[in-house]
Amino acid sequence: MAFVLQVDFKMSGPFGDEMAEAFSDLAKSINEEEGFIWKIWTESPETEEAGGIYLFKTKETAEKYLDMHSKRLAGFGIPKVNAKVFAVNSKLTEITKGPVQ
Amino acid sequence: MAFVLQVDFKMSGPFGDEMAEAFSDLAKSINEEEGFIWKIWTESPETEEAGGIYLFKTKETAEKYLDMHSKRLAGFGIPKVNAKVFAVNSKLTEITKGPVQ
Repeated sequence: MAFVLQVDFKMSGPFGDEMAEAFSDLAKSINEEEGFIWKIWTESPETEEAGGIYLFKTKETAEKYLDMHSKRLAGFGIPKVNAKVFAVNSKLTEITKGPVQ
Repeated sequence: MAFVLQVDFKMSGPFGDEMAEAFSDLAKSINEEEGFIWKIWTESPETEEAGGIYLFKTKETAEKYLDMHSKRLAGFGIPKVNAKVFAVNSKLTEITKGPVQ
């Protein structure tokens, strides 16, 4: 069973292509994190928010990543992070074509 | 560009297989919603929370679904729903293997 980590926080930018340029090396490094499966990068210039939806193999690796990531964001000047870890309900997710493999 | 809708709320159950049994017809109906691509069903029995991560084709269809879904949850006795709609940063998401096709 996979675990979802959802993260969002206030951020004044950069967004879009500039954000992609600024964080592409960080993105590559995330692929190497323990238990990591995938991440969708989220952004909302209108509300000045950004974040990510992650899939991890275990609850422990999701929580360990969140701990490290929260400290990294604090280092970027982002002290407040909204984050939750959830189990995936596999049967319902299969019906609605959720990509949790 | 796809849009993520993240939703979570307090719920005392059912979770797991019981949840899957209770909501399988609802899950099938979600596949028919306008602009819908996929949904991952999330649950946390420990914190008594549940929700979902959705991918929609447009911001408008994500927001329209959220409006309908919030009313449906209120009908289930869940008045307070945490929800946000985000654009996907495609370039970064491609690096981290996010399933947004």
